[in-house]
Amino acid sequence: MTGGNGLKSYTKNSSYQRGVIDAAKSHIQGAIAKKLQPENLETFSVADLGCSVGPNTFFAVQNILESVKLKYKTHEPNSKIPEFQVFFNDHSMNDFNTLFKCLPPNREYYASGVPGSFYSRLFLRGSLHFVHSSYSLHWLSQVPKEVTNRKSLAWNNGRIYHIHAREEVTKAYSMQHAMDMTNFLSARAEEVVPGGLVAIVVPARPNGTPHAQVIFNMMFDLLGSSLMELSKKGLIDEERVDSFNIPAYCTCPQELEAVIQKNGCFSIERMKSLSTVIAPDTRHRPQDVSLSIRAITEELIREQFGAEILDELFHLFTNKVGEAHQDIASGIALNLFLLLKRN
Amino acid sequence: MTGGNGLKSYTKNSSYQRGVIDAAKSHIQGAIAKKLQPENLETFSVADLGCSVGPNTFFAVQNILESVKLKYKTHEPNSKIPEFQVFFNDHSMNDFNTLFKCLPPNREYYASGVPGSFYSRLFLRGSLHFVHSSYSLHWLSQVPKEVTNRKSLAWNNGRIYHIHAREEVTKAYSMQHAMDMTNFLSARAEEVVPGGLVAIVVPARPNGTPHAQVIFNMMFDLLGSSLMELSKKGLIDEERVDSFNIPAYCTCPQELEAVIQKNGCFSIERMKSLSTVIAPDTRHRPQDVSLSIRAITEELIREQFGAEILDELFHLFTNKVGEAHQDIASGIALNLFLLLKRN
Repeated sequence: MTGGNGLKSYTKNSSYQRGVIDAAKSHIQGAIAKKLQPENLETFSVADLGCSVGPNTFFAVQNILESVKLKYKTHEPNSKIPEFQVFFNDHSMNDFNTLFKCLPPNREYYASGVPGSFYSRLFLRGSLHFVHSSYSLHWLSQVPKEVTNRKSLAWNNGRIYHIHAREEVTKAYSMQHAMDMTNFLSARAEEVVPGGLVAIVVPARPNGTPHAQVIFNMMFDLLGSSLMELSKKGLIDEERVDSFNIPAYCTCPQELEAVIQKNGCFSIERMKSLSTVIAPDTRHRPQDVSLSIRAITEELIREQFGAEILDELFHLFTNKVGEAHQDIASGIALNLFLLLKRN
Repeated sequence: MTGGNGLKSYTKNSSYQRGVIDAAKSHIQGAIAKKLQPENLETFSVADLGCSVGPNTFFAVQNILESVKLKYKTHEPNSKIPEFQVFFNDHSMNDFNTLFKCLPPNREYYASGVPGSFYSRLFLRGSLHFVHSSYSLHWLSQVPKEVTNRKSLAWNNGRIYHIHAREEVTKAYSMQHAMDMTNFLSARAEEVVPGGLVAIVVPARPNGTPHAQVIFNMMFDLLGSSLMELSKKGLIDEERVDSFNIPAYCTCPQELEAVIQKNGCFSIERMKSLSTVIAPDTRHRPQDVSLSIRAITEELIREQFGAEILDELFHLFTNKVGEAHQDIASGIALNLFLLLKRN
């Protein structure tokens, strides 16, 4: 994500992700009211995994803490409200400085930043009571290795994403996602106390829906076309496009269920689509959609192609989003809310 | 502290503070070997308060963890080594991004950054087993208010520090330090488990020694003279010098004992001077001393006077350090190691 507070920052261009958090709000309130087992705890620890730089993470955390307090007041009126610890996690290149400067001054919790991949252990054994992760688990831990291997059937040349590619490419993405989710669940199984909850929101597709029909996927495909256009103009090397792939994957309920059942440490308490979120194209101008995709991909692109192509690339991309308006409008935008409970 | 990895950064100009950590190393090993009560803990949490940007904090933490592991292996050979959590704390303007990028990749602990003042609560109740703070507790939470009040007897005009000032100024500094230490101990008393240890290293002066004889104090006084010289040259406004003061204080064993006894939650297990640290002037060139003082004061000065005066100011300061060589060589540089145990 693009750090800081600038016009192109994630902070200023994450209203769609904020919409998702708002849509999940009542589900999280309900989850805590119905599924959390309040014990006479002195302390209660929450982790937001993939928190980025804010302010969305602060809204999400506030909602969780208020729901927990309400639960205590309602069900355990004689017990003291516990002290709260909140761990804000993202990878170590995240702009934690901006996150820390923007922490709500009147917060009623102890705040802590945890750098590192949530696909491995991040916290002490049995130390978390509630884990939250919104719009983060679609980011893979890495681009599947086969996809950049010229000798592999899954080599993804001329594209930066798996839709409209060979079947092997999509399969490599799907397997990477399954492996990442397995690692995620194994790590959380150690960290979350028995009875603890894990609330996840991810962009997803309905079971059986082809990847190409999903708006989330279309965006990365259009970004790929824009990069190829720059390559044809001679502004970037074609080989660099071949070796670049977006490490993201749009899962479906079936795939998630399979990996959760195989892990065996969590029960699925709820899996529901968040129907209230409107796809970005239907209410936003192409420019806004472009800024929002730029805020989440700029760092990746800069690393591979350099900063100088960014403005032209996203100018092209904005045009393509405008031209693809009809396709996008008939595409699918599903956001999945998932509530897990540690056995 | 100056963030990043540049030539003027704290990272590159904190060899003196590293020397202090090295000098305290064996004391910390001894403290853990003799005073830590190993219980059959599954997890062990350490906090480094005022960690800055590294790498010094990583050396200090490594020494603590190795000592704890050794203690477990020696005294509880049948118990499992606990999992370790390390909280790196500094104020919220600290460069945590640099700190996180430099975390040792092969570390055997879960790392977390905690932004905020250690003069207030930062951690959950009863959550810490070992607290470390090296060369940080001489920084006050704020400049004593009276010192910038024109109507107060403690108004410190024409200077930026309390030595060679009216007695009331030094008294205001001393009271601020006592108040800060009281808050520090109250907060830690809540956070540290019974039997938990707090290891502190601070620059100090022997009981009864005048502040003006302490090298640590001389440095800030020379910096004040340099600022006044810039003011006389018309490069900065005299009023801005009058309203600027360095929020630091050099304590003594007597003052520390008084505040610890008054708090009543900790026993003093050890208080010892670290004689092995050589005063910066005796082995460093004035340029190096100047860079080291610049790394710890640049941010404060930039905020008050702007960045444009920095180079000229520290050029003047370097000269003054060179001229004051004899005074500095006969000055006192005491670093105090203090080990507290939570009752």
